[in-house]
Amino acid sequence: MAVGEGSLERLRPVPGVRLGAVAAGIRKRNRHDLVLFELAEGTHCSAVLTRNRFRAAPIVVTERHLAANRYARYWLVNTGCANAGTGAQGVADALSCARRVAEQGRCTVPEVLVFSTGVIGEPLAVERVVEAVPAVFAGLADDAWEAAASGIMTTDTRPKGASCVVHIEGQPVTLTGIAKGAGMIRPDMATMLAFLATDAVLDPLWAQQTLGAAVDATFNRITVDGDTSTNDACVLAATGRSGVRVGAGGDSGRRFAAALTEICQSLALAIVRDGEGATRLIRIDVMEAADEAEASRVAFAIAESPLVKTAVFAGDPNWGRILAAVGRAGVADMNVDRVRIFLDDLCIAENGVRSERYQESQAAARMRAEEVKIQVALGRGAAASTVWTCDLSYDYIKINAEYRT
Amino acid sequence: MAVGEGSLERLRPVPGVRLGAVAAGIRKRNRHDLVLFELAEGTHCSAVLTRNRFRAAPIVVTERHLAANRYARYWLVNTGCANAGTGAQGVADALSCARRVAEQGRCTVPEVLVFSTGVIGEPLAVERVVEAVPAVFAGLADDAWEAAASGIMTTDTRPKGASCVVHIEGQPVTLTGIAKGAGMIRPDMATMLAFLATDAVLDPLWAQQTLGAAVDATFNRITVDGDTSTNDACVLAATGRSGVRVGAGGDSGRRFAAALTEICQSLALAIVRDGEGATRLIRIDVMEAADEAEASRVAFAIAESPLVKTAVFAGDPNWGRILAAVGRAGVADMNVDRVRIFLDDLCIAENGVRSERYQESQAAARMRAEEVKIQVALGRGAAASTVWTCDLSYDYIKINAEYRT
Repeated sequence: MAVGEGSLERLRPVPGVRLGAVAAGIRKRNRHDLVLFELAEGTHCSAVLTRNRFRAAPIVVTERHLAANRYARYWLVNTGCANAGTGAQGVADALSCARRVAEQGRCTVPEVLVFSTGVIGEPLAVERVVEAVPAVFAGLADDAWEAAASGIMTTDTRPKGASCVVHIEGQPVTLTGIAKGAGMIRPDMATMLAFLATDAVLDPLWAQQTLGAAVDATFNRITVDGDTSTNDACVLAATGRSGVRVGAGGDSGRRFAAALTEICQSLALAIVRDGEGATRLIRIDVMEAADEAEASRVAFAIAESPLVKTAVFAGDPNWGRILAAVGRAGVADMNVDRVRIFLDDLCIAENGVRSERYQESQAAARMRAEEVKIQVALGRGAAASTVWTCDLSYDYIKINAEYRT
Repeated sequence: MAVGEGSLERLRPVPGVRLGAVAAGIRKRNRHDLVLFELAEGTHCSAVLTRNRFRAAPIVVTERHLAANRYARYWLVNTGCANAGTGAQGVADALSCARRVAEQGRCTVPEVLVFSTGVIGEPLAVERVVEAVPAVFAGLADDAWEAAASGIMTTDTRPKGASCVVHIEGQPVTLTGIAKGAGMIRPDMATMLAFLATDAVLDPLWAQQTLGAAVDATFNRITVDGDTSTNDACVLAATGRSGVRVGAGGDSGRRFAAALTEICQSLALAIVRDGEGATRLIRIDVMEAADEAEASRVAFAIAESPLVKTAVFAGDPNWGRILAAVGRAGVADMNVDRVRIFLDDLCIAENGVRSERYQESQAAARMRAEEVKIQVALGRGAAASTVWTCDLSYDYIKINAEYRT
């Protein structure tokens, strides 16, 4: 299942980027599971990686390579195996893959970044990856973003991508990104795999800061099941092929940052809409909090409540479950009489009780919408936070009880 | 569904306690939904109540009554309506019920404690409760613990009780308790409803401290879905009818505290075994932590991971999900190479990778047991914590998507 219409918009090629996807047979046969990005010389990379303490081997290798050299030539992505919980052998395996790409692409090993997604704890079938490298090189093309978006899917039911053109001092700059992820989604300072590229010339320090801020405002605001992955990564390549310079200060930086955030938001929402078993998208706005951390804590408490999520699945305005989640979110001095809860525009609870204007039929209609909007005003201050999640359905259980079999 | 054999052991009457249950028709007809405990004069009560900020009206009233007077004569419990999120009217309704019981029982209103469980946010049908009071009084009996245990059930599939005799300086003292709860279970300094009684003469201050410690070690170590209820309460009545004095210091206090903890633990495990949709019981031991809070945080991260819980439901030893949960539990300086993960006696991961001794078939056998035991050694210190939970199945979704309909 997935929420809403999910057809992929046209993904604009980014000058300086070529892509390809092949079936390497890593876990299953006859499906694309290996994707390669080729980046023009001089392409600068920014990255935000998972904070899960059990970082996957490719994350370790990618971080090491980025520390040595921010100018990458290739990104290699495999699905079917996360290469996580695989220790020193996992790192050696990730390096073997990078080395094979470096050979074929005639660059240094640290110029290759590697990413993996799939089952945790099993060794990577390195030889299958290595054998497939010539084929994936042979198919590189600049208009293959859609194929790449499909090639990085695991339990995703549809590819996810977004693309835009930003005008910087009259000159067009392209920004395109793809992402994958449907389960084990509670990004922490990073996300599931997201790959972004632009032909702008980005100031390196500014690019890293701007990507961090965009991720924090988008991917870090979504949750499917509260489980942070070991393999989360979001990377941004700036090929510079447009010759247009973007950095801190001035209108161009703000405009590019806004476009980047919008693309990230579009990908983040695509992940939630395709959350495992999702039938509805849920937006949770917590307002009037004392500070942003508090707003965020309350929003995530609602977003990760299995009781709220099953009520939304049922289209049942069982708002007492929202109230209970707000009450357990750890705001010790909360005055519950000041809390107001809304479903969309409809006030359902205020002064600690059901609103006098409340009508079950109106609330039920809002709970049966494809997008359910829960708003909570805490009456404590001016801070706010928005979190996105999906409902919890039979299919979440089905997908995760049967994932490995 | 529920885990294991669930027949109720024989619950010993407690001298000084009579009980009764009737069908008041609060939400559904023809099922017991109103339970009354009559406590002998001079019965001292200890209580631990929910820390959810949205405390239900009966919790507010009970707390107020306990502050006025620790010697209660009646406990009135209704199911079908939590009387939570009902504001001042809810408090007035709870008081009306208490007043009717005080009238009939010829005691003061503060000598009546009230407890409710059921749907949150709907008004209590006070007149149905009030009308049923004479009938529940008429049926009071000292051997009706089993009937009371059934009468307080909501989505529970079976009644929960435990009973024992402790010998204090050669004299027998009885301790019996019942509890209810299957969903919205993540007690925070309290639990769903649990009612305990003894005929010992307990030192009042010591009794409260000892109950708090017992609850912390038992009910506060379980979770079904991470959602803390608005109505959690655990109360202990000491009727004193045995004439045996128990308090701080000496062997008798230790022996009674151990028995109390054992009864609470038995009830807490009965709740998890009957967790909504549960098919397996999961015990999580986190050892070698730097401190108890850290051990507890890691244990709850595993216990509340939907991915771990669905893997257990499937009987699939997908231990990478355990590893990912440990990694996201917020222990910033964790050295993952020192972490060891066990399924029962079987080491499945060590040195950050799958154990060399690991065999999938052995792990699968342990994951298919009725009780699954996950042990995690963090390699950081000597602190430990144990948390109990159940798996996440289709039936959890079914129960919670259809609860109100």
